[in-house]
Amino acid sequence: MNAQRVIAELRELASRTGTADGAQRLAWGPVWRDAREWFRGKVAELGLRVDTDAAGNNWVTLPGTSPKTVIVGSHLDSVPNGGWLDGALGVMAALEALRMHVATQPPVTLKLVDWADEEGARFGRSLLGSAAAAGSLKIDDVRELKDRQGTRLVDALAENGVMLDQMLDAHRALKTIDAGAYLELHIEQGPVLESMQKSTGVVLGTFGVERHMLRFTGQAAHSGSTPIPMRRDAFLAAAQTALECREIAKRHSKPGAGVVCTVGIVNVEPKIVTAVPGVCEISLDQRALDPHVLAAMLRDAHDASDRAARDNNVAVEWRDLWKINPRPFDPALVQLCEDAVREETGEAPRLPSGPLHDAAEMVPHMPVVMMFAYSSNGLSHCKEEDTPREHLERTICAFLRLVQKTVQHVAHNEERKGREGRKETTGL
Amino acid sequence: MNAQRVIAELRELASRTGTADGAQRLAWGPVWRDAREWFRGKVAELGLRVDTDAAGNNWVTLPGTSPKTVIVGSHLDSVPNGGWLDGALGVMAALEALRMHVATQPPVTLKLVDWADEEGARFGRSLLGSAAAAGSLKIDDVRELKDRQGTRLVDALAENGVMLDQMLDAHRALKTIDAGAYLELHIEQGPVLESMQKSTGVVLGTFGVERHMLRFTGQAAHSGSTPIPMRRDAFLAAAQTALECREIAKRHSKPGAGVVCTVGIVNVEPKIVTAVPGVCEISLDQRALDPHVLAAMLRDAHDASDRAARDNNVAVEWRDLWKINPRPFDPALVQLCEDAVREETGEAPRLPSGPLHDAAEMVPHMPVVMMFAYSSNGLSHCKEEDTPREHLERTICAFLRLVQKTVQHVAHNEERKGREGRKETTGL
Repeated sequence: MNAQRVIAELRELASRTGTADGAQRLAWGPVWRDAREWFRGKVAELGLRVDTDAAGNNWVTLPGTSPKTVIVGSHLDSVPNGGWLDGALGVMAALEALRMHVATQPPVTLKLVDWADEEGARFGRSLLGSAAAAGSLKIDDVRELKDRQGTRLVDALAENGVMLDQMLDAHRALKTIDAGAYLELHIEQGPVLESMQKSTGVVLGTFGVERHMLRFTGQAAHSGSTPIPMRRDAFLAAAQTALECREIAKRHSKPGAGVVCTVGIVNVEPKIVTAVPGVCEISLDQRALDPHVLAAMLRDAHDASDRAARDNNVAVEWRDLWKINPRPFDPALVQLCEDAVREETGEAPRLPSGPLHDAAEMVPHMPVVMMFAYSSNGLSHCKEEDTPREHLERTICAFLRLVQKTVQHVAHNEERKGREGRKETTGL
Repeated sequence: MNAQRVIAELRELASRTGTADGAQRLAWGPVWRDAREWFRGKVAELGLRVDTDAAGNNWVTLPGTSPKTVIVGSHLDSVPNGGWLDGALGVMAALEALRMHVATQPPVTLKLVDWADEEGARFGRSLLGSAAAAGSLKIDDVRELKDRQGTRLVDALAENGVMLDQMLDAHRALKTIDAGAYLELHIEQGPVLESMQKSTGVVLGTFGVERHMLRFTGQAAHSGSTPIPMRRDAFLAAAQTALECREIAKRHSKPGAGVVCTVGIVNVEPKIVTAVPGVCEISLDQRALDPHVLAAMLRDAHDASDRAARDNNVAVEWRDLWKINPRPFDPALVQLCEDAVREETGEAPRLPSGPLHDAAEMVPHMPVVMMFAYSSNGLSHCKEEDTPREHLERTICAFLRLVQKTVQHVAHNEERKGREGRKETTGL
């Protein structure tokens, strides 16, 4: 295995498809298509070919002794002005995994996947290709999506040979794969590994998310003529709620199982220096890996907002924005991942994934695990995104080790099942 | 004295210069000029005339036995879609005060003043005419002002016969008046009298104001991937500060001497649901009648913001927006006002004025007091502004009583001074 080659190819891709402002591989656009064309050349060098499914996902198959399959993948698309590693790291490491096995037929089949439009940066729907493959995409939910220029998703797809109404054929195709594991390497996009000065992390699953808007309605009033006890200040109710939501997150966090609550959007009305805010709207984004914890956090936040509304003599209304259930990864693969990381780096910190990944879409369909690489300053979706070279090398090596272990593990399971099958058949 | 006539004239003015959306007497515009023309007719009925000073303020003089003068006034201009009483109540009550004294020569001179552009609704500079008369207007500060249509203040003034660079001649004119008192009746524009179910209030002075922007700078971060202990959330620092500023106001409030702190503007960046706010800017408006209390409140707010910044691992910077010192009214006139209100309404609640008024500009130059009328729901600067009829009548009567008391008080002082002067002259 050759981590240096992976890094060299990532640099080559970055210089081909990036600018001084960062990566420009926006899904469905010309730079993304060029990146995939370049990647097709790399695959051809191995004597393999790229197949595109009905959702625009690119697959490379290295047949093994058994049709039982280990899938390794990530995405080549990026946000505009994105980082050089987000997505691309996982795809190029997957290519190196195929290279490692191409000389001799592996015991199980290996598939590389490059998911289409993980970022959703242009049309606002992330995990588009993997959701289609997973069968979780609702076509009618995305049918009317347009980008900022007014171009319709359906037309952008057609330009790339993808027919919106046939995208779920990708799901039928996925179901034909006898998948034993899905593995994905990704940059952390957060500061946890950096804070521990660890190259590599074992990912336990992707957070469940509860996302809501809270609207507090009091009474706008003159800042000079309205005594404090007569005010119905919507902003102060929101401020109290936001601070309490942080306490909720702290209360529900356990070592190795942190949870988060975030107020990212704040709008006050009438928003003038001489007026007590009559209305304040805030977003609340709550995340946890344990579904029971997530549900408890949501209940606590409701209680906190009700209490803040009462304390400030205002009303509060909740509006759902979005939710997704937690997607915990497969315990056996998590253990393999931990072994691989420990062997390569000495220690194997476990952490949940706050951001979603294509891996989350695979969880209902097969055993899944992810590995994270150190992320400098936790920066993501910007040109400053980086993993220092030594951390990057170590992580790629750990991931390739994980692929080997997983191939052995799946092959071993198949063998055992085969033996048990024969026993049953022969009655021994 | 005839409160009913004052109300009838206010109704007449409202129907002449208002629409279904409220009063439209925007300073320097045609409707305002028409209101002043109508008022000129009312003055002419008393055999008196209107003189306009260099700042566009209109004066009516009723000469008394002594040149010592009691000034009574307010403003006819309104905000767009304003209330029927804001400003106009004080001017029409002042006219009734002249009527009361016009039949027989009063012992002191009475002057009515209708200040120009109290509201500053078009060019953003309130108290324009009274500040010019007070000599506090800095001409260069307003020289470049434009309205939303791009019309320059200097041109709007010229259209009304006012030369910007000669406006301070109004101050020289004011200094020629031997003023013994300035009296102003105004609607409260707040909910205090209504909450006590009192028709009329004695105003102790206008609040001093400290107005600042506070900018908290932390670090924007992904809401999913950044654990709570690693965040530098600028919004939560601002929320903590805003809540503490309310406690500061409560702590510094005493019965009859309430103070206020208001956070009216809140801006977060990057303002997206999945990002911890890296920057949060809030406005802080603090008001108190006692300058020492106002200074202490400001120190406490600085301490609170420093503490919140430390607690949240962010930085905070303050930027001054505006300040004005408290303008406490004359104790002897406050006592006369209290007597007048008590005799008319049974009780005389004292309260500070949160909003500024032309009266504040007169404080450095002569003894001043104001009287407030009940304000339904505390609403102001809108068509819903109102004082219920019985409260309005009682308040007008109380104000006319205050004018009479003040005329007697100033005359009495003059007489005493005269006697003392004669004593000195004759050596008795």
